[in-house]
Amino acid sequence: MPKNGLFISIEGPDGSGKSSAIQGLATRLSQDGFDLVLTREPGGSPIAEQIRQVILDVNNTAMDPMTEALLYAAGRRQHLKDTILPALAAGKVVISDRFVDSSLAYQGVGRNLSQTDIWNINQYAIQGHLPDITLLLDVPAEVGLKRIYQARNQRQFDRLDQEDLSFHNKVRQAFLDLAADQDRIHVIDARQAVDQVVEDAFQVLKSSGLLY
Amino acid sequence: MPKNGLFISIEGPDGSGKSSAIQGLATRLSQDGFDLVLTREPGGSPIAEQIRQVILDVNNTAMDPMTEALLYAAGRRQHLKDTILPALAAGKVVISDRFVDSSLAYQGVGRNLSQTDIWNINQYAIQGHLPDITLLLDVPAEVGLKRIYQARNQRQFDRLDQEDLSFHNKVRQAFLDLAADQDRIHVIDARQAVDQVVEDAFQVLKSSGLLY
Repeated sequence: MPKNGLFISIEGPDGSGKSSAIQGLATRLSQDGFDLVLTREPGGSPIAEQIRQVILDVNNTAMDPMTEALLYAAGRRQHLKDTILPALAAGKVVISDRFVDSSLAYQGVGRNLSQTDIWNINQYAIQGHLPDITLLLDVPAEVGLKRIYQARNQRQFDRLDQEDLSFHNKVRQAFLDLAADQDRIHVIDARQAVDQVVEDAFQVLKSSGLLY
Repeated sequence: MPKNGLFISIEGPDGSGKSSAIQGLATRLSQDGFDLVLTREPGGSPIAEQIRQVILDVNNTAMDPMTEALLYAAGRRQHLKDTILPALAAGKVVISDRFVDSSLAYQGVGRNLSQTDIWNINQYAIQGHLPDITLLLDVPAEVGLKRIYQARNQRQFDRLDQEDLSFHNKVRQAFLDLAADQDRIHVIDARQAVDQVVEDAFQVLKSSGLLY
């Protein structure tokens, strides 16, 4: 068990299967005795969930992209303070469904805002607390979108899902560029069946030497 | 009438009498034929009002000061885009009860955050759109607090009003320091009766040459 906890973020475009992968990974890590905290963004603490509601409100079509970027950073700050940092201080393994890389990919590239600006705002919000390791679930935009459309009957529709294929393509490439640039981020082929995605994710964690 | 509109912000600690002064000033300017838009922060547009609710929710005592600073900036961005810039483009006179200087004074100094950080976040939010002129209603902290306590039966209690005298003193001094530093900001003695405050505010606007 890591002494100071371990902060894992799972990233990827919508439809990359993050939820299923996290569930499978959590089962496996729990069986090995790790004390886990599963969380997600936007949201992840009571105040951050209030901010999430503003961000994802389908009626807020007039939201400016810079407003959105600042709201994500605000929610992230509170999520970090209320949920992530206390869990790490207690030596737990935190798995967050999305963190700062999602803002860099979605706001910085997807929404055509300056990635430097998004990085600066988020540096303020996180004050150096990047994940120890990030698993990027990569799928082609077509595959991701198809999964989203198939799932739509089962889950609540939100504003982000209304974006088109070119948006998803831009976001995917932004994630891959981040991964190419940072050793912290490991790419996993998320076109595979969920069991294989979980296996790959587990092997990446194992070979990182951070947990085992 | 100014061709490109005029953006006036009214600043000051709680209890400085901004609301009454704005009402009086608006009556006077309307009589002179100016087309006015009165607005306020936090809030001032539908999405910004949603953000206001999160900021001022009395249950959100766990809110981190950096979260708060980012939320104010997010709301300001949306307020500017939805309300202030369209009104200015239509040649109107916008009077905003609070704008960026409140964040510099309350978050930057009152909450002991870095004023440089607050400025950077807000520069991102406002993209150069500072008020053309700012009237700072100055009162000693004791006078401001006494007015707040007297008004409490009539108006909704919010979290900011629970701060103590030393906080109000810090905020007052922060406002005065901003005024000393920037020609845009004009100090008005708000210990005076509201009619005199309105008269002083009117004279400042008149002698600025921006409206008359």
